[in-house]
Amino acid sequence: MHQGLSRRIQRLKASPIRDMLREIEKPGMISLAGGLPATASLPKFDDGISTASLQYGASEGDLQLRELIATELRMRGLDADAERVIVLSGSQQGIDLVAKLAIDEGTPVAVESPTYLAALQTFSLFGANFLPFDVDKLDAAFTQTKPLLLYVNPTFRNPDSVVYDAMQRERLAATCDALDTIVFEDDPYRDLAYESCERTPVCAGLQRSNWVYQSSFSKTIAPGLRLGYLLCSKQLYTPLLRLKQATDLHSNRLSQQLVVQLLKDDANIERVSKICEDYCRRRDCLDELLHRYFGHLAHWRRPAGGLFFWLKLQAPRTLDTRQLLLKALVKGVAFMPGEPFYCDGRRAASALRLNFTHADPREFEPALEILAALVNEELQRKCP
Amino acid sequence: MHQGLSRRIQRLKASPIRDMLREIEKPGMISLAGGLPATASLPKFDDGISTASLQYGASEGDLQLRELIATELRMRGLDADAERVIVLSGSQQGIDLVAKLAIDEGTPVAVESPTYLAALQTFSLFGANFLPFDVDKLDAAFTQTKPLLLYVNPTFRNPDSVVYDAMQRERLAATCDALDTIVFEDDPYRDLAYESCERTPVCAGLQRSNWVYQSSFSKTIAPGLRLGYLLCSKQLYTPLLRLKQATDLHSNRLSQQLVVQLLKDDANIERVSKICEDYCRRRDCLDELLHRYFGHLAHWRRPAGGLFFWLKLQAPRTLDTRQLLLKALVKGVAFMPGEPFYCDGRRAASALRLNFTHADPREFEPALEILAALVNEELQRKCP
Repeated sequence: MHQGLSRRIQRLKASPIRDMLREIEKPGMISLAGGLPATASLPKFDDGISTASLQYGASEGDLQLRELIATELRMRGLDADAERVIVLSGSQQGIDLVAKLAIDEGTPVAVESPTYLAALQTFSLFGANFLPFDVDKLDAAFTQTKPLLLYVNPTFRNPDSVVYDAMQRERLAATCDALDTIVFEDDPYRDLAYESCERTPVCAGLQRSNWVYQSSFSKTIAPGLRLGYLLCSKQLYTPLLRLKQATDLHSNRLSQQLVVQLLKDDANIERVSKICEDYCRRRDCLDELLHRYFGHLAHWRRPAGGLFFWLKLQAPRTLDTRQLLLKALVKGVAFMPGEPFYCDGRRAASALRLNFTHADPREFEPALEILAALVNEELQRKCP
Repeated sequence: MHQGLSRRIQRLKASPIRDMLREIEKPGMISLAGGLPATASLPKFDDGISTASLQYGASEGDLQLRELIATELRMRGLDADAERVIVLSGSQQGIDLVAKLAIDEGTPVAVESPTYLAALQTFSLFGANFLPFDVDKLDAAFTQTKPLLLYVNPTFRNPDSVVYDAMQRERLAATCDALDTIVFEDDPYRDLAYESCERTPVCAGLQRSNWVYQSSFSKTIAPGLRLGYLLCSKQLYTPLLRLKQATDLHSNRLSQQLVVQLLKDDANIERVSKICEDYCRRRDCLDELLHRYFGHLAHWRRPAGGLFFWLKLQAPRTLDTRQLLLKALVKGVAFMPGEPFYCDGRRAASALRLNFTHADPREFEPALEILAALVNEELQRKCP
């Protein structure tokens, strides 16, 4: 029944209380079952917060929100249905749930390299045996070991903002279908597109494999609300929902209420398009400054979307950007060194990730000036 | 270094981004490190919601909330410090984190029987080998196998509202100290006390063992906010914080902001004391009705606090309350059957849990009338 899933899924029982909640919601039912507080006991907050949002809710999330999500996901090309959507307490939670679903100690997990460091962290916690893959060399990949799970972030990938074209997406889906590998597609950045490019989910191209597709409201609404969502193939829904129950019962209902309000408001589309305009200007500004300060020091590609530039320093010898970071922090500049984005022990020492969406753009130039000076200093020290 | 913890803790690396957040918060730092949205891009909600609450936050929770929690926990007798508090996305999350911290497949975990079913569910998911214990028979317990973790809910325990006296608490702490067992104390109901009784945490009496104490804002503020918290011994703090990072980055900041507002308001103390008055009246009302309808059908003790009555049916033969539930649902009444609260395969068939804090008290009588009629019917069918 649960072939290809972790051993712990065999031990996963439904929570009778949670399962009963559906029955209990029927009109006229007198429930002495749950452990809910009296409705009159709930505190009164500002007008915007409904009493319903303060009570316990369904593990899968509020129906209205799941329906809005399913509609959006159908537009992205996915076979979506509110009955297969689970609202998450941020998309990091989806990574935790999928790790619980599929990873035992030693389970082969295919990942891009570089990839999102907190996915590596969580998969590693559960004992993943990483198989790094390159989407352009899929024929050579997985010849020795077949991955049971493949994690991919095909649109404006963290950290290097790579976006897969249609062919790459198709080939990846076909490979996973052939191997019967569960595809876990993480797609938090797709709405932050500054150029036209392919964004159809890889999962939309699967014929046979099981899959989980997830995204987040952190990038286009607000990260402090901690809300994301997943959609999955039918076979994975029940185990994922039970894992969600066992992890935090259900997600914050206040955030769910606020996100529903926003998504139903037409002004939100304009708000997101204004964010993209702002971020696009910021990207172009940083790109221009990079040419000025790092033209001879690094390689990079201007990202078509997302949040990050990914710089590879052209050092004659390896220059460890973790050491560079320590020096930069002293001078008042922070960036992400490349190393933690790699699963394969490669030190990736000479890469760094620069975010362009949060700092004041007027600070880009002083920051790059400081960083470039530090890199030059390091190079002179290394090659006297 | 991590003796007595799960194997996965050896694989647990810090998240460099999260760890850097502290550095980045220093005034004057230009951060190109994280993946934060522009502050100006965040949506405007009602007046009550601050922009700060919409951004990413610290994994351990907002400092102001942690300080309020630490002050409260010192008053409960615990060695508390905001630097060892972690804000949780509800106390179910604490169960998930402690399971990750301490439970590998086969790890011996001591639990009361009955105990909170969702703790059993999560511990079982991680492969716990359950050792049921009775606090009054601790000498006989654990002679064959030493538990690495002990889970206890000593104040108004779910499901049977048992509360430990001072001697029982002391003996339990001494036993765990002697065995060097990690104590995980779950204390969500302590503020719902209708009579004076011992409520000093078991963890306050430990001399040597590591411990995690957790509680929740779900019972006295609102469950939909999904906020709880834990305090732990020093050695467990770093692994628990990293597990929290890997699980959901951090808890909802909106809820944290609202709870801080409430806790700082003196009116909140009166609000909670009114809740207790209301719940006490509800308890007495249900108790009186139970005497009328179940006087000859069941045993129970009037709970000194918490949310539940625990009935043991005096059936001459075993009467499975799971079957009873199916019939009761058809008649429009829901309750919790006893079975899922036991870890040891005991069917506990003749027990049931009744909540008295949520349903309209005017519905108590029709509900008990229906339940008593169903029990009588079953008894007549069984003993013709």
